[in-house]
Amino acid sequence: MDVTIAIDCMGGDYGPSVTLPAALDFLRRDPAAAVILVGQSDKIEPAIAKEKPVFGDRLRVQHASEVVGMDESVATALRSKKDSSMRVAVDLVKSGAAQAAVSAGNTGALMAISRFVLKTLPGIDRPAIAFALPTMKGQTYVLDLGANVDCAPEHLLQFGIMASMLVAAVEHREQPSVGLLNIGEEDIKGNEVVKRAGELLRESDLNFYGNVEGDDIYKGTTDVVVCDGFVGNVALKTSEGLAQMITTFLREEFSRNWMTRLAALVAMPVLKAFKRRVDHRRYNGASLLGLRGIVVKSHGSADSYAFGKAIERAAEAARNRLVERISERMTHYNTIRPSDSCTPA
Amino acid sequence: MDVTIAIDCMGGDYGPSVTLPAALDFLRRDPAAAVILVGQSDKIEPAIAKEKPVFGDRLRVQHASEVVGMDESVATALRSKKDSSMRVAVDLVKSGAAQAAVSAGNTGALMAISRFVLKTLPGIDRPAIAFALPTMKGQTYVLDLGANVDCAPEHLLQFGIMASMLVAAVEHREQPSVGLLNIGEEDIKGNEVVKRAGELLRESDLNFYGNVEGDDIYKGTTDVVVCDGFVGNVALKTSEGLAQMITTFLREEFSRNWMTRLAALVAMPVLKAFKRRVDHRRYNGASLLGLRGIVVKSHGSADSYAFGKAIERAAEAARNRLVERISERMTHYNTIRPSDSCTPA
Repeated sequence: MDVTIAIDCMGGDYGPSVTLPAALDFLRRDPAAAVILVGQSDKIEPAIAKEKPVFGDRLRVQHASEVVGMDESVATALRSKKDSSMRVAVDLVKSGAAQAAVSAGNTGALMAISRFVLKTLPGIDRPAIAFALPTMKGQTYVLDLGANVDCAPEHLLQFGIMASMLVAAVEHREQPSVGLLNIGEEDIKGNEVVKRAGELLRESDLNFYGNVEGDDIYKGTTDVVVCDGFVGNVALKTSEGLAQMITTFLREEFSRNWMTRLAALVAMPVLKAFKRRVDHRRYNGASLLGLRGIVVKSHGSADSYAFGKAIERAAEAARNRLVERISERMTHYNTIRPSDSCTPA
Repeated sequence: MDVTIAIDCMGGDYGPSVTLPAALDFLRRDPAAAVILVGQSDKIEPAIAKEKPVFGDRLRVQHASEVVGMDESVATALRSKKDSSMRVAVDLVKSGAAQAAVSAGNTGALMAISRFVLKTLPGIDRPAIAFALPTMKGQTYVLDLGANVDCAPEHLLQFGIMASMLVAAVEHREQPSVGLLNIGEEDIKGNEVVKRAGELLRESDLNFYGNVEGDDIYKGTTDVVVCDGFVGNVALKTSEGLAQMITTFLREEFSRNWMTRLAALVAMPVLKAFKRRVDHRRYNGASLLGLRGIVVKSHGSADSYAFGKAIERAAEAARNRLVERISERMTHYNTIRPSDSCTPA
C-alpha cells in the first residue's frame, strides 16, 4: 500500500449509497491503495460486510457519530460537530493515518474544517479551490471557485503558484501555462486588483501567458486560469446552467414526435459518444489547495462513478507529493522574492 | 414613419457587406421605419443604388469620412475621429434626426462616444450594457456586461432599475423580477459590494427576487440578472466558449465516419430545430442603458441576420420610449428615496 484515503462516507446528497460503492470500486481498480471509511459504523459495516474480507487491511472503518448537513452553517460544523464524518476524515490526514481526505459534503464547512485542522502552508494566506474543466484541447484547471470572494493581487499570484504545482503533480506537466481571467487581452484591461495581479504574475517565475477571457477556459488556451472566488464560482455555475439547458433542448428536440425519436435511435451511438466527451462526472473532484494536507471536494450530487473520480484525484495528488511541491515552491519563492511576500487581505 | 434608426454601416468585422443588406431587409420587414445609413458614401451609395428609389425618404445616407477600427483605442476614437461613422450615427440621435443608433463597432469606443455625446440621464452615474440570453423559460436580461469593472452597490441598484424599464418597454412585462448575481442564495453570501447591493435592492420598489447563482441565468429564474461588468463579461464569454466547444464536439462526433454521417443526415431536421433554439444570432444587440438616447451594440462578428435583430431591438426600444421610462423612474426614485441617491464610485 502506497497511499491511504480517508473518505467521508456520510457527505453529499446521497451519503453511503454513493460513497461506499465508489470506495469499493476504487479499491478494485487500484490494488496499491487503501481507504478508511469514515462515518456512522452502523450504516457502513452492514453495507460492506460481504466485501470487507476481500480487501483485508486495505479497507478500514472509522466510526464518527455526527454528520454535517448540506445546509449547515460553517460555524456549527466547525464548533459543535467535532465527531462529524467530515471532521474525522480531515483529522486522519492531520494525524498521518491517511494521505488525503475526500468529501461530498458542504463546501464551506469542508474548507473551514480543513483550514482549522490542517492549517495553511507557509507563504499561503488563503487556501483556494481548483477544478478541472474539459476544454477543446484537454482540460484546464480554474481557481478559485468560491473560497475567496475578495482577493488581493497577492492571493491571485499564490493561486497561480498552487495550481501550477497541482498541474505539475497530477498532469506531469512541469511548466504549465497560467492565464489571468480578465475582460480583455490587453494589460490595461480589468479592475485594479486584476491589473496588479497581472504585474505580479508577469514578474514571477511562473509560465505566465497573460490575460485570458472567459471563452479561453473552454478553448484550453492555458493549463491554469486564475481568478477570484466570486468570478470563478459564477463562471462554473453559469457553465453548469448552460450545459443543462443545451442538454434539455437537445433531448426535447429528439423526443418531439415519432420521427424525431426514430432519428434519436439512429443517432444514439453518436449522442452517447458526444455525452461521454462532455461528461462532467469525469471531472469531478475539486482540490482544496494551500493546506498542509490533501483534501478533495466532490460535487454534492455526484453518483458513485463521479465520486470515484474524486477519490482517484486525491490518490494521484498524494502519490505525486502535491503538498510538498507547493511547499517547496513557496519556500523557493519567498527566498528569491522577499519583496513580493504575501499580504493578508 | 414612426421611428428612424441611424446605422453605423462601417463598424464590425464585415462592415457594409453585412450592415447594408441588414438595413434593407429591416426596411422591407418594417414599413413604418426609416434608416439613415452612416459611413463612407462611396462605399454605401453604389451598393444600394438599385434599391434606394423603392424606399424613398425611408432610406437616407449620411456621409462620414472616418472609421473607428475594431482595436482602436477609446481615446483616439473619441478625440481624433470626430467624423467617424460611429460618432456621426450617435450625433444623429443627439440632434433628434434619429431615435436610436446601432453599431457593430468597438464596444469601448461606442460607449465612450455615446456617453460623451448623449450624456447620462439624471440619477444615473454610469451607463451599463444589457444583453438578452436565451433561457429554459424564454430570455433573461443580464447587465452589466463590461462597461463597469468596479461597481459600487448604488450602481448595481441603478442597473436593476434600468433593466427593469428595458424589460417593461421591450417585453411589455411591467414588473419584471430582478435577481442579484451572487455565489449562494443566502443574504450573507458574497463580497461586500454585493451584500450592500442586496440591501439596496430589497429596500427598493423593484420586484427584487433576491440572490441568484450563475446557473439561474439559463434556468430563467428571473427576468433580469444584475452584476458588475467584470463578472457579467466573464459569464457571457464563458458561455460563448462553452457553447462553441459543445457545438464543435457535436459536429466532430457526427462527422467521424460514414455511419455517423448517415446518422447526421437522419437527425438533420432535429439538429436544425435544436440549432434554431440556441441560435445566439437571434439575441444579438446589447442595449447601452442610462444614456439620453438609445444606442444598441451589435456583436462585431454578426452576420446580416444577426445585425438585423440588433436594428429591430433599437426600433422596439425607441417605439416604447425606453429613455423616457428610465428617466421617469429615476425621477420618481429620487423623489421618494432621497437618502439612497447615487454616489459616484
